[in-house]
Amino acid sequence: MSADPVEHTRAEARRAQILCAAAECFRSSGFHGASIAQISKAAGMSAGHIYHYFENKEAIIAAIVARDLENLLTLTAEIRSARNVQEAMLERVAEGVDDNLNPWMAGLKLEIVAEASRNPRVAEIVRSADRACRDSLTLTLRDMRRAAGHEDDDATIAAMVEVLAAMFEGLLSRSIRNPDLDRTAVMRRFQGAVRDLLNQTP
Amino acid sequence: MSADPVEHTRAEARRAQILCAAAECFRSSGFHGASIAQISKAAGMSAGHIYHYFENKEAIIAAIVARDLENLLTLTAEIRSARNVQEAMLERVAEGVDDNLNPWMAGLKLEIVAEASRNPRVAEIVRSADRACRDSLTLTLRDMRRAAGHEDDDATIAAMVEVLAAMFEGLLSRSIRNPDLDRTAVMRRFQGAVRDLLNQTP
Repeated sequence: MSADPVEHTRAEARRAQILCAAAECFRSSGFHGASIAQISKAAGMSAGHIYHYFENKEAIIAAIVARDLENLLTLTAEIRSARNVQEAMLERVAEGVDDNLNPWMAGLKLEIVAEASRNPRVAEIVRSADRACRDSLTLTLRDMRRAAGHEDDDATIAAMVEVLAAMFEGLLSRSIRNPDLDRTAVMRRFQGAVRDLLNQTP
Repeated sequence: MSADPVEHTRAEARRAQILCAAAECFRSSGFHGASIAQISKAAGMSAGHIYHYFENKEAIIAAIVARDLENLLTLTAEIRSARNVQEAMLERVAEGVDDNLNPWMAGLKLEIVAEASRNPRVAEIVRSADRACRDSLTLTLRDMRRAAGHEDDDATIAAMVEVLAAMFEGLLSRSIRNPDLDRTAVMRRFQGAVRDLLNQTP
């Protein structure tokens, strides 16, 4: 890649275009079913072009996971900088529920975790992103709990982060298993459940 | 299949053997990667034998999903027949958490949901089982909430069932994303979160 800013922007746009096409191919055909040939067709580029930006399918998955992680780290940093961390968190819960109940997004994310359960290279990508995500949520929850007068040990915060993560990740399956669920009613109960979790006694 | 009880038992044993082999193949190679040839090798039977019991891979998935559903319906019926429904539910939560944090089982279940997101026949299998599961959980939660003096409308109970299902299904991803999680600490927080959910104000 060039140091020329126009070239740089063009390269970024190409990468984004490939990620978008690949996400759709992984979602609709699965990680194994999607070939570089299929991705290159969907992206409207030659396979050689794809390989110029990404070494293989795992590198594309790594870029998709990195982009999601970046969004989440921005979100948790925003929550931490809010005056009332708990209220900021609960406000953002609604957005998170909505995102995870999107069946397109859910299909892609579930495919990546399913692939991680059998492919050690994808597992490493997913686990390293999860570690960064947990670290950021740990900071956020600690701030929140301190503000509410709780002094928790690391194991308590880690377990709360796990339950919070499970709740959000479980929504991915729900949009596929029950496409007719009442999003507004679920959102309200979900928000209540997150509030209760954040206020559990140590 | 024969009406002869010995033949019947033998057929049941063969079916169970195929389901076991197929579950391992789906988990390790994905639904598309697993062929009937690979399943027949893992089961130690000819492909013709497999086709005698199951028309195709979707029929095998349907049988795996039906078996899981049966276990869940038995469990919820047991909970409903307990003297204290809420306490029975919370006791069983520990078993459910343990099952869903088993990475082998999680890999298989996630693969089935990921496949459902792109394969309409698998989607129908998964959705119909989910409907039966929700119906049973709805009865259970209604009993529990009545015993605690709440009279909820259908939408409230349905949303509680959704959040409960999301919590359990999300554990499937957690065991893959963070294999080092502290199971005992997570179990305790999870149980607290379920208790709070069951006691949310209408």
